[in-house]
Formats: sequence, C-alpha cells, structure tokens
Amino acid sequence: MIDTAVLSVEIELQRYFAAARLRATDYGPHYVALWDALEHMSSGGKRVRPALVLASHEGFGGLQQDAATSVAVSFELLHTAFLIHDDLIDSDLTRRGGPNVAGVFRDRAERSGGSERQAESWATTAAVLAGDLALSEAHQLIARLPVEAGVRGALLDLLGRSVFVSAAGELDDVTNTVGGEPMGLPGVLSTLERKTAVYSFEAPLQAGALLAGAGADAIDALGRYARRVGVAFQLVDDLLGVFGDPRVTGKDVLSDLREGKRTTLLAYAQDTGVWPQLAPLVGTGELDEHDVHRARVLLLSCGAAAATEDLARDYAEQAMRELTPAVPEQLRGHLCDLAESAVRRVR
Amino acid sequence: MIDTAVLSVEIELQRYFAAARLRATDYGPHYVALWDALEHMSSGGKRVRPALVLASHEGFGGLQQDAATSVAVSFELLHTAFLIHDDLIDSDLTRRGGPNVAGVFRDRAERSGGSERQAESWATTAAVLAGDLALSEAHQLIARLPVEAGVRGALLDLLGRSVFVSAAGELDDVTNTVGGEPMGLPGVLSTLERKTAVYSFEAPLQAGALLAGAGADAIDALGRYARRVGVAFQLVDDLLGVFGDPRVTGKDVLSDLREGKRTTLLAYAQDTGVWPQLAPLVGTGELDEHDVHRARVLLLSCGAAAATEDLARDYAEQAMRELTPAVPEQLRGHLCDLAESAVRRVR
Repeated sequence: MIDTAVLSVEIELQRYFAAARLRATDYGPHYVALWDALEHMSSGGKRVRPALVLASHEGFGGLQQDAATSVAVSFELLHTAFLIHDDLIDSDLTRRGGPNVAGVFRDRAERSGGSERQAESWATTAAVLAGDLALSEAHQLIARLPVEAGVRGALLDLLGRSVFVSAAGELDDVTNTVGGEPMGLPGVLSTLERKTAVYSFEAPLQAGALLAGAGADAIDALGRYARRVGVAFQLVDDLLGVFGDPRVTGKDVLSDLREGKRTTLLAYAQDTGVWPQLAPLVGTGELDEHDVHRARVLLLSCGAAAATEDLARDYAEQAMRELTPAVPEQLRGHLCDLAESAVRRVR
Repeated sequence: MIDTAVLSVEIELQRYFAAARLRATDYGPHYVALWDALEHMSSGGKRVRPALVLASHEGFGGLQQDAATSVAVSFELLHTAFLIHDDLIDSDLTRRGGPNVAGVFRDRAERSGGSERQAESWATTAAVLAGDLALSEAHQLIARLPVEAGVRGALLDLLGRSVFVSAAGELDDVTNTVGGEPMGLPGVLSTLERKTAVYSFEAPLQAGALLAGAGADAIDALGRYARRVGVAFQLVDDLLGVFGDPRVTGKDVLSDLREGKRTTLLAYAQDTGVWPQLAPLVGTGELDEHDVHRARVLLLSCGAAAATEDLARDYAEQAMRELTPAVPEQLRGHLCDLAESAVRRVR
C-alpha cells in the first residue's frame, strides 16, 4: 500500500519540476540548469518523510489522498531545501556520490572559463537560490490545500515549527565547532532532535494524522514517538558514518571524522582515557586511512561505539512505549517495525 | 494616510519578532541572537514594498486593513530574506553601515575565540538560516490570510512569481561576472527587472489591488507600470552608486566599481572609446579614491552617465503612460508622483 502511495509523490514531484523547468526556459539556460540541479537533488533519496505522512494518514483512516500527497511532497521539498542549504553551510560540493547544486554550478563556471573566485560565487548563488525555491514550494503546497481552514492552519503550524526548530538545531550543530567548549552528550542529543527528528519524523507523522482527523492524544503520542525514533535513526547514522561500509551506506567514512563532527561517539570518548590519543586525529581535515583505523580502534576500545548503540536501542524502545492505544493498531505495528529497523541497521 | 498605515506594519513586525524571540529563548542564546540580527536586518529600510501594498489597497477602495497589513509585512519579510541571502552571495558583512547577520555572527565567533574558518562558517550558517526563516514567514502570512480561497490563491501566485523571477534575476546578476562575455545593455535591463522590479514593485502593487477586488485590466496595468518604474528606480540607484554623495545615499561609492558590478553605466561605456582606459579600473577590488575619480570622469565623458539618466527618465515616463483609467484617479496621481520621484533623486 505505502509503496503505491509513494509513487503518487514521485509523480507529483516530476509534474512540479517539469512545469517549473518549462517556465524557467524563459529565463535562459543557466536557470534551467538550476532547476535540473534542484530536481536531481530531490531525487535518489529514500522518501522517508513522504512515506511517514502517507502511512500516518492511511493509519488513521484518512481518505484525502490528494491532500496527503501534497503534504508528503511538501515535506520532501522541505528536506531538499535543508539538504542544499546544509551542504552550503558545510561547503560540500557532492551529495550521494555526485555533484550537488553547488558542485554542478562550480563545474559549469570552470567550463565557461570563470576564475576560482567566480566559480565559488556561482556555486554559492546556485545553492542559496535552489534551497530558497524548494523552501518556497514546500510552503505553497500546504498553503493551497483545499481543506478546512483549521486543518490548513494546523499543518502550517507544523511546517513553521519544522523550519523554526531545524534552524535552531542547525545553528547548534555549527556552534559546536566554534570556540573552545566541545558539546557534551546532552547537547549532541538535543541537536539531533532539533536538527532532524522534528522535521523528518515528528512533523510528517503528525501532518498525516491531522489530515485524517486524528485527535490531540494521538497527535501528542506520535510526536513523542517520532522525536525519539528520529534520534535513534540519527545515532545509528553517526555509527555508520564511522564504522559502516561505504559501499552499502553510500557515506564517506572519512568525512565525519575529518570534520570532527560532534557525534555521541566523540562526546562519549572525550570523557575517557583515549581522548588524548583521539583528539589530535579528528577534525584536522588531513586524516588518512591509517588514522581512520586508529580512530575506530580507539572509539571501540573506550566503549563509545557500544554506548552509542545502546543509546540508539534505548531511544527506539522509548519510542515504541509512546505508542498508546490512541494510535490505531495497524499503524502502531508499522511504527514499531520502523523503530526496530532503525536499530537493526547497525548490526 | 499612508504613513499611518505603514505604522501598522511596524507594529506587526515588532509583534512577530517579539513572539519569535520568546520562542527562541528555549533554544539558547545564539538562536536568540540570530533572531535579533534578523529583526535588525528587517528594520531601518524605507518600507517601500509595504507602502505600495497599502497604497494600492487603499487606492482601489479596499477595506481589509488587517489582511493588507499582513500582505505588506509578507513582502517586507520577503525583501529581508532576499537582502540577507544577497549579502551572503556577495560575501558582504555589512549593510546600512553596520554588521549584517553574517557580520554579527562573525564578530560573535571571534569574541568566543573561534578560528577564522570557524567564524566564516558560523557567519554563513547564520545568514542562510535567517534568510530561510524570513522567507518561511513571508509565506506563512499569506497562507493564513482569512480571505476567499481564490484571492489567497492569487496572492500566493504573486508571492511564488516573486520568488521564481527574483531567483532568475539573481542568477543572471552573478552569471554576469562568470566567463568572458560581459552582459550588454538589454541583459542589464532585464536583470534589473527580474531581480528587483518584480518583487519590489509589481507584486506588492498587484497584491494590494487584488485584495481590494481590482479587475484584471487594472492588475495588468499596474504590472506594466511597476516593472518600468522599478527599472527606473534601479537605474537611478546605479547612478547614485557611482556619483552619489555617500553621506546622503548611505552607499559606499567604491563598492559598485570595485566589484565591477554590471550596470547600464558599464554596459554603455563598453561600446565607447573610453573602455580601454576604464576596463582596467573596474572589478579589480583595489580601486583607490584617485581611480574612482578617473572612472567617474570617463563615465561622464563617454556619455554613459547621461545615457543612464535618459534611460531612467524614459522608463519612468513609459511607466506613467501605462496608468490607464482602470486605475483609480487618486492612485494614478500617487503613482505618477512616485515615478517622478524615482528620477528626481538623481538631480
């Protein structure tokens, strides 16, 4: 059922980009290229957020398929906007193994004989604009929903909260690397919740439920479940970012360590005896394969890896306990499977 | 009348930022500082766009004061978002003589002992996020208008067109400096229309009129007027950017020439005999007062300054001719005054 429903999201996204691309042709080939790059960034993902919107809507017996599809597309475009602006913040030029929006425009500038400085400026411009365009459409989709004003208002609240809380989380995440005080475990966990769990899990699940007319108790339970399961997913992501097989995860195992990304792994390790050996390895930008191996051994030996895995399992279990009978049984089953799969990825 | 109405915009903006700031306190002092920086960026402007929304709404006999205020605030926040993201694209750290959002966070990072690279990363993050937050609220305001669905849809169309066309214009503007082919006069003029006239003049005037129930003829006439008057304003801005008194205009007379900003002045000069002398002076980033003086003399002697002034006058006159009787007489008078004031600034 869910897979067929997500197909409607693909179709809507394709329709949206085809129309935008057509309008963009009036503004020259670079603008068309910007839309192509934006569409490319919005494809290839796992459609986690649309699947949650649709599962929740269906789980509460919702019958507004078209509106649910629009909401699902809205959260997917919000995600695309965040990915693009996040890459811009991190000065990344690639995503999922290919050039991202900035990377595409950097390459274009170089092919046109632009200087290094011009190529950078063009790449930044393209990333800023592509994110803005996706963010705008995420809002337009919910603003135009032909549903009752109260429901539309509640959905706009969820979208607004997603933007507000994610921005706080993104700022936390970068703040982390500024100044002398490295973030401890509570800070890392709250950043994961703010930066990802709210917009990726909480808001999509609640939006689908709202559209189906779910009651306040159910919406609250979904929120508590979603924030916890979202953190569990992120904890596992952090583990896979260091210990995963890049051929399976598609993630560069060096990048988290090179950037010195403040994960629970590092937050845990920093209070242990291995820190004096580990600290010089991370965040230097010059880590080689040998250093990565050493860093992994240290993160395993100090217990950071096991502690992160335990924490992920705890969060997933807490999440499942939040699924009260206010949530329909079939949906509860689906969400329990999801929580289990979050942790299963690490094994 | 208009001044009192714009006061309602100030009050709404203050209320919005006070509420956001209060919510931000749950997310730590840096996030509060981000909201403060965003509010600061939204203040101190001339409120051109709100004044146009309100004048147009009143001119067509509109009675929806609260909705008009929300639409006016929406366009002001859209403008704030664009300013912030434009500064990010241009790597500017100041605006109106003080630090902009990026500048504020750069200073904060330096005070916290962050490295140069960390300070830059924090500044970029703050600018990306502040622009996103303002862009989001611009949409929320129109999405929540308690007006007929058709009117809300038309207003959302205007907002969407503003974002779409401005992005095309911003991309043109930056593309300008990439690769070998400098943009000619038609390109410069279409960039001005796309980047500024549509969102700053066309959409606000049409939005106020739509809300007041104006007919399609009037809306079209306003659009044609607004795109031309918007270009006239920008042409005069470009003249003031080179020849204006910085104590009056608040603009750094060096920056346009230093960046080699592609204005009608340069587009005109490049087809004249002074170009071999002028070209080495502009866009080098190292222009001194003496070079500026030489560049000014060359731009005057080749006729570029006079031609730009003539062009601005032409556009303003064309704009006035578009004001058909479909536009109420009093509003027509007001808009004629506006067109004349666009050109008068240069004398």
